[in-house]
Amino acid sequence: MGMSPQGRQAQAAASSEDADPPVISVDAMGGDQGPAAVVAGVVRAARQHGEARFLLHGRSAELAPLLAKAGLGARAELRKADGVVTMDDKPSHVMRHGKDTSMWSAISAVRAGEASAAVSCGNTGALMAVSMLRLRKIEGVNRPAIACLWPSRGASGFNVMLDVGADIRADQTDLLQYALMGAAYARNGLQIEQPRVGLLNVGTEEHKGRAELKAAHELLSVNAGEAGFDFVGFVEGGDIPSDRVDVIVTDGFTGNVALKTGEGTATLIRDLLRDALQTGLLSKLGAVLAMGSFKKLQTRIDPRQVNGGVFLGLNGTVVKSHGSADATGIAAALSLAVTLSRSGFQRRLAARVATVNALRQDAHSPEQDGS
Amino acid sequence: MGMSPQGRQAQAAASSEDADPPVISVDAMGGDQGPAAVVAGVVRAARQHGEARFLLHGRSAELAPLLAKAGLGARAELRKADGVVTMDDKPSHVMRHGKDTSMWSAISAVRAGEASAAVSCGNTGALMAVSMLRLRKIEGVNRPAIACLWPSRGASGFNVMLDVGADIRADQTDLLQYALMGAAYARNGLQIEQPRVGLLNVGTEEHKGRAELKAAHELLSVNAGEAGFDFVGFVEGGDIPSDRVDVIVTDGFTGNVALKTGEGTATLIRDLLRDALQTGLLSKLGAVLAMGSFKKLQTRIDPRQVNGGVFLGLNGTVVKSHGSADATGIAAALSLAVTLSRSGFQRRLAARVATVNALRQDAHSPEQDGS
Repeated sequence: MGMSPQGRQAQAAASSEDADPPVISVDAMGGDQGPAAVVAGVVRAARQHGEARFLLHGRSAELAPLLAKAGLGARAELRKADGVVTMDDKPSHVMRHGKDTSMWSAISAVRAGEASAAVSCGNTGALMAVSMLRLRKIEGVNRPAIACLWPSRGASGFNVMLDVGADIRADQTDLLQYALMGAAYARNGLQIEQPRVGLLNVGTEEHKGRAELKAAHELLSVNAGEAGFDFVGFVEGGDIPSDRVDVIVTDGFTGNVALKTGEGTATLIRDLLRDALQTGLLSKLGAVLAMGSFKKLQTRIDPRQVNGGVFLGLNGTVVKSHGSADATGIAAALSLAVTLSRSGFQRRLAARVATVNALRQDAHSPEQDGS
Repeated sequence: MGMSPQGRQAQAAASSEDADPPVISVDAMGGDQGPAAVVAGVVRAARQHGEARFLLHGRSAELAPLLAKAGLGARAELRKADGVVTMDDKPSHVMRHGKDTSMWSAISAVRAGEASAAVSCGNTGALMAVSMLRLRKIEGVNRPAIACLWPSRGASGFNVMLDVGADIRADQTDLLQYALMGAAYARNGLQIEQPRVGLLNVGTEEHKGRAELKAAHELLSVNAGEAGFDFVGFVEGGDIPSDRVDVIVTDGFTGNVALKTGEGTATLIRDLLRDALQTGLLSKLGAVLAMGSFKKLQTRIDPRQVNGGVFLGLNGTVVKSHGSADATGIAAALSLAVTLSRSGFQRRLAARVATVNALRQDAHSPEQDGS
């Protein structure tokens, strides 16, 4: 990925701030493909990021032989945890009885300051519950959010969308915080110095949509300057992959439906294209000749390459990988965790939230005095 | 499109019911591409549907020469209307001052019983407002909905989704009516005798999601039998193009975001594919050889081929074509109007709404007596 001058500047500033090499805490047990896929992902990520270290949490009987074969030496460390959170476990159950699980152990290493970020392929609901319990919300954040990367026409190749499923509700204040957190993510994860933020709606006219969206439109307009983003107003579903915007803000219900609709559409088209290219001799031959281009395209829109929903609004970075992720997908999630750790994302985000909250309270004081 | 045995039966039953040849009332002025595209669309639709007739509403100075050239003879009739609804006109303004417009005239012909369905490329909000005012809601329907067709893996090649933008709100009773209306549309428009209906949510577990969705889950389960559909429960965004379901029910906010996200994703992939195939000599050659297959695929996922959102819940069928539709898109919308007219869709839908409402009132009576 090419990097803009601003991006280089931002990254230089960040690395001086964060002198320690990143340590990523990895829940090795939660995924559908088991610990072997996780260890294979760690091997790839370790190759890409020479300075990073990894803590792997899980059953030593399964992990120890995998790690021995991987030959990562001192760059990977086994942390014993016998319990495993399954996809069917209720979040409330894991919160009460999950202390011995690999997921709990992975998050706790971030809490203890031993790791700069955690990565898990486990159950989203349980991971959010354990993360909230162990890391707590950043002061001033009401609802944490999950942010995803979306292949786009923009210069970085990706847009950020949030919330994609942490919470089904969001009022105007939550939406402002999502804007702030999404902008911080775009700045530190995609090196976009002044991200453009849009609010997802069913039309771009200011009078349209739900009441909380009109209120959020006002709030975002007023606070964009201090929060360090440009507010482009309402955007529609068709704008999510566009280069009109870098960050798309919405509630977790709408965001989750949009994300899964986009993934479903991409998968349908990929399958139809494959079928079409297997019909007839000319098509088959054409497909063989154009194979290189197809592969490049597939990489560009492959959900595995953009694997990793980031939990925003907690005192610690947590990356949720797809449950079905393979080594490629897990490596992408780990890389994202390394990039965010290196940029000092967590500290910058908390500072930005504190500043905007302080300013909003100042702005409200005269009104309150007058009433 | 192949037709199932049930489909043939349903269509045979319908054609005996509706002996009159379909007459489609066409707003010739509202689209971005002007009346020439509309007349070209009518010419194509007339060729496909030998028995159909068309009433074209608009300015005679522009329409008369176009119709004269088209050579449709008695199969097309000009209805003079000097006013035009623009994309910027507010619905409320059109309701008060729009009596001279081609849109108003097109809807009024359905109200007067001269046409069996209306088609317009105009402003969605204004078209819904004029349709509500002139045709009125079917008794027992609280909110009308807009249904769209979505390319799918199902046998008919399409799934129905509603509401995609008539109203941003929907409570559980509205969602039941959407299910009923969407099932009637799938039965008469896609020849699926017993459609499978799913309720769009962020997870498939019954305890998940917003309160109105849990209530709607209960309502749909109870009423599916009488309403003539199978209820498959909650579905997610990724299921919209699947063959698990024929009809996807959601509120107009979520549906509109999903529709535009799907269209945006399809367009992004098409553009990336085109770029990929223009890079390098082998790819270019491959693309030429596979051209036939690409064209077939493009037709399959071309939004123009599934052009036409149908307004459901009014006393008359109204098809909203994309504002930017060209002759191909307009012909698709007209074909849909012809198919629905021939199937006796409008009468069957009203009868189904009446039956389910009567049964729900019966079911509620004992409770009311007891309270």
